[in-house]
Amino acid sequence: MEISELGEFGLIDRLAKDISPKNDSTVKGIGDDCAVISPTEGMQTLVTTDLLMEGVHFDLTYVPLRHLGYKAVMVNLSDVFAMNARPRQVTVSLAISSKFTVEDIEDLYAGMKMACTKWGVDIVGGDTTASMTGLAISITAIGEARPEDIILRSGARPTDLICVSGNLGAAYMGLQLLEREKAVYDEQVAEARRSGSKEQMEMLSEMQPDFSGREYILERQLKPEARGDIIDALREAGIRPTSMMDISDGLSSELLHICRQSRTGCRIYEERLPLDYQTAAMAEELNLNVSTCALNGGEDYELLFTVPLALNDTVAAIDDVHVIGYITEEDKGLALVTRDGGEHQLKAQGWNHLKS
Amino acid sequence: MEISELGEFGLIDRLAKDISPKNDSTVKGIGDDCAVISPTEGMQTLVTTDLLMEGVHFDLTYVPLRHLGYKAVMVNLSDVFAMNARPRQVTVSLAISSKFTVEDIEDLYAGMKMACTKWGVDIVGGDTTASMTGLAISITAIGEARPEDIILRSGARPTDLICVSGNLGAAYMGLQLLEREKAVYDEQVAEARRSGSKEQMEMLSEMQPDFSGREYILERQLKPEARGDIIDALREAGIRPTSMMDISDGLSSELLHICRQSRTGCRIYEERLPLDYQTAAMAEELNLNVSTCALNGGEDYELLFTVPLALNDTVAAIDDVHVIGYITEEDKGLALVTRDGGEHQLKAQGWNHLKS
Repeated sequence: MEISELGEFGLIDRLAKDISPKNDSTVKGIGDDCAVISPTEGMQTLVTTDLLMEGVHFDLTYVPLRHLGYKAVMVNLSDVFAMNARPRQVTVSLAISSKFTVEDIEDLYAGMKMACTKWGVDIVGGDTTASMTGLAISITAIGEARPEDIILRSGARPTDLICVSGNLGAAYMGLQLLEREKAVYDEQVAEARRSGSKEQMEMLSEMQPDFSGREYILERQLKPEARGDIIDALREAGIRPTSMMDISDGLSSELLHICRQSRTGCRIYEERLPLDYQTAAMAEELNLNVSTCALNGGEDYELLFTVPLALNDTVAAIDDVHVIGYITEEDKGLALVTRDGGEHQLKAQGWNHLKS
Repeated sequence: MEISELGEFGLIDRLAKDISPKNDSTVKGIGDDCAVISPTEGMQTLVTTDLLMEGVHFDLTYVPLRHLGYKAVMVNLSDVFAMNARPRQVTVSLAISSKFTVEDIEDLYAGMKMACTKWGVDIVGGDTTASMTGLAISITAIGEARPEDIILRSGARPTDLICVSGNLGAAYMGLQLLEREKAVYDEQVAEARRSGSKEQMEMLSEMQPDFSGREYILERQLKPEARGDIIDALREAGIRPTSMMDISDGLSSELLHICRQSRTGCRIYEERLPLDYQTAAMAEELNLNVSTCALNGGEDYELLFTVPLALNDTVAAIDDVHVIGYITEEDKGLALVTRDGGEHQLKAQGWNHLKS
C-alpha cells in the first residue's frame, strides 16, 4: 500500500495501534504534544539520541528493514546501559521517501518493537514525515538510575583493570562480507546487462549468497544486542565499575575517550583482545589484520569498563567479560602491547563519517 | 573551513565549547553516553521530538541557517508549553552533507542557542553525523510540570470556550511570499542565462527582493516564537485550560485533534479568526481566501486551548488571547460559521507532507 493512501495521520494511527505503554513510569504515550513520564522517586533521568541516515549508516540493498529497526533502537539502549542505567522509553522519528510502502514501514516498526519488548521499553512518541531523499531514523532513548549508580567515562584511575564484554571486530567483519557480496552481485548484474541475457538476469534475481559458517558475524552486524545482561551480572557480583561506555566507534576510539576524560593513560594487550573464530577466519580471507579490525572496527556495542585492581578475581569470574589491560598515569600515554612484546601508541581511527 | 578538516569529534568539541548547563536539573550535559537530568521532586517529565528534512521542511535558498536553528528549537519548545509545562533541556542531532562549512554549522547552532537562551533551556547532547543528501535536524525537547498542571488534548467539554493566542495564517503568507520571490528570481536567472548577459547575471546576484511592509509575515515564517508568555499569563490569571495544544498544522487540523480526543464537536466563527493586517493584504494580493489561510496555513505555533464558559471575562482580559467559538456535543460535528451566517464542516487540510 502506498503511504499517500493513508497520509501522515493515517500512518501514525496504524503504527501506533498496538503500542500500549507497559512501564509504570510512562504516564502518557503517543497522541499529544509531548509524552509524559513520571520519574521514579530518587532516580535521575538519562537521555541519549542517534540520527541514522540512509547511505551513511545503512545500505538497504542488504539490510532488511526489520533488522534496521531493531538495530536503531538497540544502539540507543546500549548507550543507556553504558551509564549503568535502565532504558524505559524511546521516541522514534522517521523521514520516509516515496519509495517505501506502508508494509515497509510496518516492518521497520516491527523490528523496533521487538528490541523494545526485549528490554521492557515503551515507544512513547515521535515524528513521521516525508523525505525528498533517503530514509532518516532518529531515536531518543530515556532511562533511569539512582544517582549513585550512574557511571561516567571520567572515573577511571591508574591501576584499574580495563574490561570488555563479548568479543570485538565481528560486526565490522560482517559489514565487509556484506559489502563484498554486494560488489560481486553488482558486477554480475552489470555483466548480464551487457550480454543482454534475460535468463542470467532472472537467475541473479533468485540468487542468494551462501553465508553458511558466517552467520555469527552477519548477526553481529545486522542484529546487535545491547549488553544489559552484563549490567545485571556486574550488579549481582557487587561490582561497580569506575568508568564505563559502550563500544560503537571501535575500542581504540573509546579508550581515548575514557583516558581523556579520566586524565589517565592505558596499556592493553593485543593477545588479550577477545575475538570470535569467524572474525579471525574472515579477516584472514580478506587479508586484514584481525587486531586492527578489533581495535578500530566499530559497531560492537559491547561494554568497555574499568574496575579497581582488587576486583580482578571477581570480574574475571563473570561470564563473557575479559580483562584486556589496565589504566596508567596520564603521562604514560595509550599503549598497545603487541604479541611480540612491542609497544604501539593507540590511535582512534574509528568510524569518522565526517572525515574524508 | 571544511568540516573534514575538523572531523566529527573536532566539530563536536567546537560546537560544544561554550555550552554550559544553566539549569539546576541538568546534572551532566554533552560528553558521555547519555545526558543526566535530575527531575525536580514531584514533577513529571515531558518529552517531544521533531525531525526536519531539507527540501521538505525548509528551503535553504531563502532560509538563513541561523533562523533555521532558532525555529527548529522553538517549535519543540512550543510543544512543551502546549502541555502547560516548562522546557528545560534539548538534544540536537544533525546530519550534514559536504556542502556545509564549519561556519555554516556554527551559524545554525548560534540560532539554536539563541532560542535556548530565551527560555533558559540547556543543550545537553545529540549526535553529529554525515548525510549523503541534504541537511537533517532532529531535536528532542524535555520539560517538566507538576502532574496536576499538565494539560492534554482530551479535556475539552461542551460549552467550553475555544481560544487562540496571537493571530493565524501569517507564517503561511510569509512562506507564499518567499516562494513567489524565489520563483521570480529563478525566472530572471534563467532569462539572463538564455541571453548570455554577464551584466544582468551580476545585477541579479546583488539583488535583494523588497520586503518592506511585509516584515511581520516573514518573521512569522522565519523566526516563530513559542508562546511561553501566554502560559505565564494564564497562570497569573488563575486559569487552567481544560485542553490545549499548539497550532503547527493549521487551526482546523488541531481542532480536529482536540474534538476527536475529547469526544466533542465545536463551533467557531469566521469573523472571530484573529488576523494581522499584513496577512490579509498578502492574501488579497495573491488572490487567496484569508480565512482558508488562517484555518489551514500551519506553522503558526500559537496556542489553541479551551476554558470553562464561566471564565469568559477573565480570559478575554488577557492580552493577545481571542475567543473564537465554543465546544459542543460530539454529534454536532465541527462547524465553521461564516461571515454570512452559513455553516460549513471543518476539515483538516493542514500540512500533510505525506499526502501527495
